[in-house]
Amino acid sequence: MAHIKVQKDVPGIRSLVNFRPETGKPLYALAQSLLRGVSSLTEAERELIAAYVSKRNDCIFCTNSHAAAARYVYGDDKYLVDEVLQDMLHSDISNKMKALLNIAGKVQLLGKEVLTEDIIAAKLVGADDREIHDTVLIAATFCMFNRYVDGLASFTPSDETTYEIMGKSMVHNGYRLTA
Amino acid sequence: MAHIKVQKDVPGIRSLVNFRPETGKPLYALAQSLLRGVSSLTEAERELIAAYVSKRNDCIFCTNSHAAAARYVYGDDKYLVDEVLQDMLHSDISNKMKALLNIAGKVQLLGKEVLTEDIIAAKLVGADDREIHDTVLIAATFCMFNRYVDGLASFTPSDETTYEIMGKSMVHNGYRLTA
Repeated sequence: MAHIKVQKDVPGIRSLVNFRPETGKPLYALAQSLLRGVSSLTEAERELIAAYVSKRNDCIFCTNSHAAAARYVYGDDKYLVDEVLQDMLHSDISNKMKALLNIAGKVQLLGKEVLTEDIIAAKLVGADDREIHDTVLIAATFCMFNRYVDGLASFTPSDETTYEIMGKSMVHNGYRLTA
Repeated sequence: MAHIKVQKDVPGIRSLVNFRPETGKPLYALAQSLLRGVSSLTEAERELIAAYVSKRNDCIFCTNSHAAAARYVYGDDKYLVDEVLQDMLHSDISNKMKALLNIAGKVQLLGKEVLTEDIIAAKLVGADDREIHDTVLIAATFCMFNRYVDGLASFTPSDETTYEIMGKSMVHNGYRLTA
C-alpha cells in the first residue's frame, strides 16, 4: 500500500502524478524531452540507460517498465537489454554505449564519482558532449524517479505482461499526462 | 573545468540549462512548482529540505545556494539553517520538520529506505499527505539536481558572497530560465 492516499491500482509514477498534477506536468515534460526528444542517442539506448540506472537503484517498477520499452524498440536486438542488466561490461552492446553506461553508473552512485578519465574514455569511442550531457541527465533523472516511486511506496505490478503492455504504450504514446 | 563545453564562469545548473534548454525548461518548471508553488510548507522549509539533501549528497553548489535562499527567507530564524545542516536531530527546528527531514534523509539514501514508521511518525506530529508527498519529491529532485551539477563538474563558485546574492535572487525571482 502506498504511503499516501493515491488512486488504488494505478501503478508507479502515474498515481503520484495524478495526486499532484502541478509537479507531474514538468516531470512528464522532462521525461518526454529526454527520452523522446531530438538526440543522437536512439530511443532504445536512452530507455536502456533509464532501465540500467533504475536496476542499480533497485526500483522494480522503473526497471521493468523501461526495460520493456527498451526491448520493444530494440526489436530483434532485445536480448541486449537483458545482457546489459545482467552484466553490462560483458554484454554485446557497443563500446560507446559501454562507456556511456559506465558514466550513468557513476552518476547513480553520486555526481562526483564521474571522473575526467570516464569522460575521456567515452569521447575516445565516439561520444560527443551532447550525448555525455544527456546520459548524465537521464541517469540523474532516474535517480529522482526511482526515489519518488519507491519513497512513497507506489503500487508496483508484479506480472510481466503488464510491463510489456506498458513498455509498448510508452514507446507509442510517449510521456504525456493524458496517455 | 566542466566535463563538457559550457559557458565559462556561469555557475552550477544555469550553465547546463543554457547548454540544453529543451531539458532546462521542464527542470526549472519543476523547481518553481515544488519550491515556490502553493504548499502548506513555507518557502523557507522547502529550501531547507533542498539544502539538507544537497549537503548529504556532498553537492557544494546546491547546498550553498539553497542554504543561502533558506537563510534569506528564514530571516531572524536563519540560525536554524546552519543548525539543521550541522546536526538536524539536535537543532531547534520543529518536530514536524524533524520528521519530514528524516524522510528526506531516507529518500537521499534510496526510496525503499522510507518505512511505514517514518510516515506514521511524521503524521503523528501533524504532517499531511501533501506535505509528505512534497518532501519526498523535493528530496528526490535534489538527488537529481546534485548529480546533474556534479556529474558534469559544472562551475562551483567558492566565495560566500556569491551564494548570498544568488540565494536572494532565487527568493525574489524564483526559478525561471530568464532570471
